[in-house]
Amino acid sequence: MLIIGEKLSVISKRVREAVQKRDKAPIQEIAVSQWKAGAGMIDANIGPADENGEDLMQWVVSTIQEVVPLPVCLDTTNAKAIEAGIKVHNGEWGRPLINSTSNDPERFPMLELAAKYKVPVIGLTIGKGGLPADAEERTVLAAEIMGRAMEYGLPLEDLYLDPLVLQIASMQDHALHVIKAVRMFQELNDPAMKTIVGLSNISNGCPRNVRPVINKNFLMLLAYEGLTAAIADPAEVMKTIKTIDVITGRTLYAHSYLEM
Amino acid sequence: MLIIGEKLSVISKRVREAVQKRDKAPIQEIAVSQWKAGAGMIDANIGPADENGEDLMQWVVSTIQEVVPLPVCLDTTNAKAIEAGIKVHNGEWGRPLINSTSNDPERFPMLELAAKYKVPVIGLTIGKGGLPADAEERTVLAAEIMGRAMEYGLPLEDLYLDPLVLQIASMQDHALHVIKAVRMFQELNDPAMKTIVGLSNISNGCPRNVRPVINKNFLMLLAYEGLTAAIADPAEVMKTIKTIDVITGRTLYAHSYLEM
Repeated sequence: MLIIGEKLSVISKRVREAVQKRDKAPIQEIAVSQWKAGAGMIDANIGPADENGEDLMQWVVSTIQEVVPLPVCLDTTNAKAIEAGIKVHNGEWGRPLINSTSNDPERFPMLELAAKYKVPVIGLTIGKGGLPADAEERTVLAAEIMGRAMEYGLPLEDLYLDPLVLQIASMQDHALHVIKAVRMFQELNDPAMKTIVGLSNISNGCPRNVRPVINKNFLMLLAYEGLTAAIADPAEVMKTIKTIDVITGRTLYAHSYLEM
Repeated sequence: MLIIGEKLSVISKRVREAVQKRDKAPIQEIAVSQWKAGAGMIDANIGPADENGEDLMQWVVSTIQEVVPLPVCLDTTNAKAIEAGIKVHNGEWGRPLINSTSNDPERFPMLELAAKYKVPVIGLTIGKGGLPADAEERTVLAAEIMGRAMEYGLPLEDLYLDPLVLQIASMQDHALHVIKAVRMFQELNDPAMKTIVGLSNISNGCPRNVRPVINKNFLMLLAYEGLTAAIADPAEVMKTIKTIDVITGRTLYAHSYLEM
């Protein structure tokens, strides 16, 4: 499973301040530590970035890739900033990932960008009509995104379907719906559709000591059902990922597998 | 899920010595600590116990139940010792569990005892012909045990089917077979058949730091597939059990669920 490091987000005060001051050191430190912890891609969440979004995304992408040989997940609702990020992204280590399109027409331009630049994109199964009620509603929304992707000329293998993880503390029944949706999404195509989640949303609002326990156990079940990728804290989840890979036979057991 | 505390086993030198000297203190200390950690039953593994097995099992059961208000899982290949244990078992906190019958004719007397005393029994899916190759072979063996149980007059709800957990370090592909077997066993009857595993077998032979990670993650998948009970270390696995119950909606989320 691909782990996309979640820590470079303007939700964090440290990151927000570094971004405002264009201070490379904290950004690069966080990027490097996620890479060393096992991330295969770095999420760069610059928020809505309505002002100077293009410049900001280019600075963040370049700052990350100066020190880390990984692709970047371009995370903002500003399509111009996404496009600017794609233009400076160093493709040597893989293509960037657009985060994200959805069933909301305001997010359709993200799909256009993905098709235009031939880069993968996350398709979040939510429209303007409120939260999907269950796995079935998520799957209907996923199928709509797939239809739109084909219309725009984006190959389905470049689409990562996201079942929209919600807080277990207030919307407990959605946890199983999301797990079930991951299985159902894959069955929408052959070869199986790719799937992705924003993992930490599950434990949003939970006490600090509880969060890693919920995150890791929830990820275990998603991985078991075949999840392709997760935006998560690699330091927290890599042992879980390595262990599921051993249990399911995706990697060979070795006494040292946790260190590999 | 029912956790049956695994720590009172003569595999442990401390327990073996206490049992030989009929020294109650270590036995009771281990029983109490497992009860406090969340065990719902205490496994009493006295080994083959060919000599003085009856006296030994009676002493262990009484010693445990003097201090802990839980039923005991009677764990030995000596049928006379099992019968002796049933006779002194205090039924106030539930019935004892016989550990175990199997497809080996030498273990059929355990099924007779279960039927005679109306107590539940573990049915281990292994015969004289070597290890079951996969989930399907385990399921054939499980169906045979069920047939024999009906023949002996044991209600199927008193049978706990055990898919035989093997060491991941040397028999990695069995891990997924066991998980699949837990699902398949349940489908052998309506209401679903009960299932049980000896959890720690999965990480037998693995390095010390790796064992809890494998045990907990393996249990998570078994629990997700509907496992009824596990013989395990409650101190190690209770957080995992509580979390799967929250994720699957079996218990309501509360910020303090890990402490409850």
